[in-house]
Amino acid sequence: MDKSILAYIAGFLDGDGSIMLQIKPRKDCRYGFRLCSAIVLYQDSSHEEDLEWMRDQLGVGYISRRNDGISECRFDGHERVATVLGQLGLYIRFKRKQVALMLEALDKLKSVQTPIVFLEVCQLADRLSEANYTSRRKHTAKTVETTFRRKGLLSP
Amino acid sequence: MDKSILAYIAGFLDGDGSIMLQIKPRKDCRYGFRLCSAIVLYQDSSHEEDLEWMRDQLGVGYISRRNDGISECRFDGHERVATVLGQLGLYIRFKRKQVALMLEALDKLKSVQTPIVFLEVCQLADRLSEANYTSRRKHTAKTVETTFRRKGLLSP
Repeated sequence: MDKSILAYIAGFLDGDGSIMLQIKPRKDCRYGFRLCSAIVLYQDSSHEEDLEWMRDQLGVGYISRRNDGISECRFDGHERVATVLGQLGLYIRFKRKQVALMLEALDKLKSVQTPIVFLEVCQLADRLSEANYTSRRKHTAKTVETTFRRKGLLSP
Repeated sequence: MDKSILAYIAGFLDGDGSIMLQIKPRKDCRYGFRLCSAIVLYQDSSHEEDLEWMRDQLGVGYISRRNDGISECRFDGHERVATVLGQLGLYIRFKRKQVALMLEALDKLKSVQTPIVFLEVCQLADRLSEANYTSRRKHTAKTVETTFRRKGLLSP
């Protein structure tokens, strides 16, 4: 693909996008928590066709319209996020730190077999949220650690 | 310059930037008003070095730090704005309309000799502001027209 298209989308993501790794409680998951990765591009709904163009260029993702006049182009799931970062990563500047933390987390998740590795990924999620200046997170690595200790999943 | 650098900056501008043409009263100007053009890129002050990088790539502009934690990379003045749009214009997507209106205005301003042409440029400034969803503008083409009529600069 044309390098300048990828660079454009990377610039847009740096300006008006997010790279997120969230910890969500899920009873049916092995450790009681799930890690949800996503990249989101935001724009006024009147420009939805340009968000669609970006999605089409990247070959993944979907558009959704919020009820506050903003539309989102969202890439979620570890595989999709890895694909998109593989394409844009080289051009991203402001969110370099988030890219590095996400790639490290995705890499660890591929091989995660133990509670301690899962907890390490949650700590990466915390650092990624800090890089995003996200406050008021409901579930952090601390939540996961406390639960793991209560369940005796971590050695004392 | 590397096309992908220009495309990146264009993407960033589409995501977190502004293209503005403002009408400001100025007693020492021929028509009592001045048209101020500017392109601004915004980012958290902790990322100021990336704004500096963009300024250095474009070869014009300056960085200023606001007191709300946001820094701006600003290109102002008709000539600088024309230079920057000349470089980025091809890659801009979401703000295409603003680019077209700005270029039309800058072109008219080069040859502006009459109140009617100046007023036409003010009308372009109004349309550009509308495209930016800017509300609460103090001075619009209507303000200029009213003043011109009072001064007898326009035929009735």
